[in-house]
Amino acid sequence: MTDTNTPSSQVAPRRRGRPPRRAEAAQTDTRTLLIRTGVAVLTQKGYSAVGLDEILRLAQVPKGSFYHCFASKEAFGQALIAAYADYFARKLDRWLLDETTAPLQRLRNFIADAMQGMARHDFARGCLVGNLGQELGTLPESFRARLEDVLLDWQARTATCLRAAQQAGEIAAGHDCAELAQFFWIGWEGAVLRAKLQRSVLPLQVYAQGFFQLLQTGGAASANCP
Amino acid sequence: MTDTNTPSSQVAPRRRGRPPRRAEAAQTDTRTLLIRTGVAVLTQKGYSAVGLDEILRLAQVPKGSFYHCFASKEAFGQALIAAYADYFARKLDRWLLDETTAPLQRLRNFIADAMQGMARHDFARGCLVGNLGQELGTLPESFRARLEDVLLDWQARTATCLRAAQQAGEIAAGHDCAELAQFFWIGWEGAVLRAKLQRSVLPLQVYAQGFFQLLQTGGAASANCP
Repeated sequence: MTDTNTPSSQVAPRRRGRPPRRAEAAQTDTRTLLIRTGVAVLTQKGYSAVGLDEILRLAQVPKGSFYHCFASKEAFGQALIAAYADYFARKLDRWLLDETTAPLQRLRNFIADAMQGMARHDFARGCLVGNLGQELGTLPESFRARLEDVLLDWQARTATCLRAAQQAGEIAAGHDCAELAQFFWIGWEGAVLRAKLQRSVLPLQVYAQGFFQLLQTGGAASANCP
Repeated sequence: MTDTNTPSSQVAPRRRGRPPRRAEAAQTDTRTLLIRTGVAVLTQKGYSAVGLDEILRLAQVPKGSFYHCFASKEAFGQALIAAYADYFARKLDRWLLDETTAPLQRLRNFIADAMQGMARHDFARGCLVGNLGQELGTLPESFRARLEDVLLDWQARTATCLRAAQQAGEIAAGHDCAELAQFFWIGWEGAVLRAKLQRSVLPLQVYAQGFFQLLQTGGAASANCP
């Protein structure tokens, strides 16, 4: 998602040479519209099952205009990952950097917002990154590293919040906050998937409850693992 | 997966009336072969991205023979879910009902086996149920309840093992084993997804470590949730 809030499906006819300012603006709008439509469709259906034609039809953008904005479906997919990552990072920061709220409550607020978001879309939309991750077998190889980078970014933002919780004495000093954040995101994508399957916030609730229970332990040092 | 270990792509020509025993056997073999091929492809690529033609080509089965075995791609998909569920339930039981091993170690052994399995297929294959769950937006609606039922079945088998661990004093009496098993499977599907993305067992390890840490708490009563 970009900064403009006024997408438009009106595209000026293509001319040779550097386009005049109005055509440039229209192209930015078309790009924004295509990205917005693409993100909505990919959070719902994933990448492989969706033809470019379907997105163009939904966005009411002719194919020629698409190729003014993106070199290929792969380049478009990469732009969608970047846009979703940016949108979601801002959402995470809005909750997790909220200085008016105690750190763990910030995480609870983010989770409550995610539940509302999934319910608002009737559990039809999941996480674009999770959807694409599940489809890796059929995706351009260039997507893999980008998707992992996005998750690492979200983990880092979450770890910052958990460290604030640790400093505030909300979780024990024995916890490795980076590892906790990694655990959270590994399982959270599963919870989003299961919420879609059940059409219910229950999996998100169960997962959050277990995670907060884990936060109340002394830390990783006491655990056995296989 | 069925009991026969001798699938064959040789199919006898179709005759009118009840087929003789040899043709019946060949049809069973074809069905087995199609299911085996379909499960392999779906764990890797999911449902939507795969045409029936691709599966038929891989299995070297002509389309006419396919329709002797299955009424539609949807019926085939349902048979694949059933076959995978059956295969996986037997795998779970092999580990989780192993009376020669302490209950929590059984779960660790299952996880270690899953890691080896993913590594053996170069992290290209995930969980058929997780893959299809992620694709719900484009799947026949009949798949939803079946996928949830499969997960509930796996959860029940896991809860039985956790109850044995509780009886053996390996985990605290305050734990609700059904809820723990639900938590495990919600997050585990996320861990399998992330392992595919990272091409590494690390997400499975991190998830298992956190889960075993959770098992060592006193139980759900002490946790806050959003």
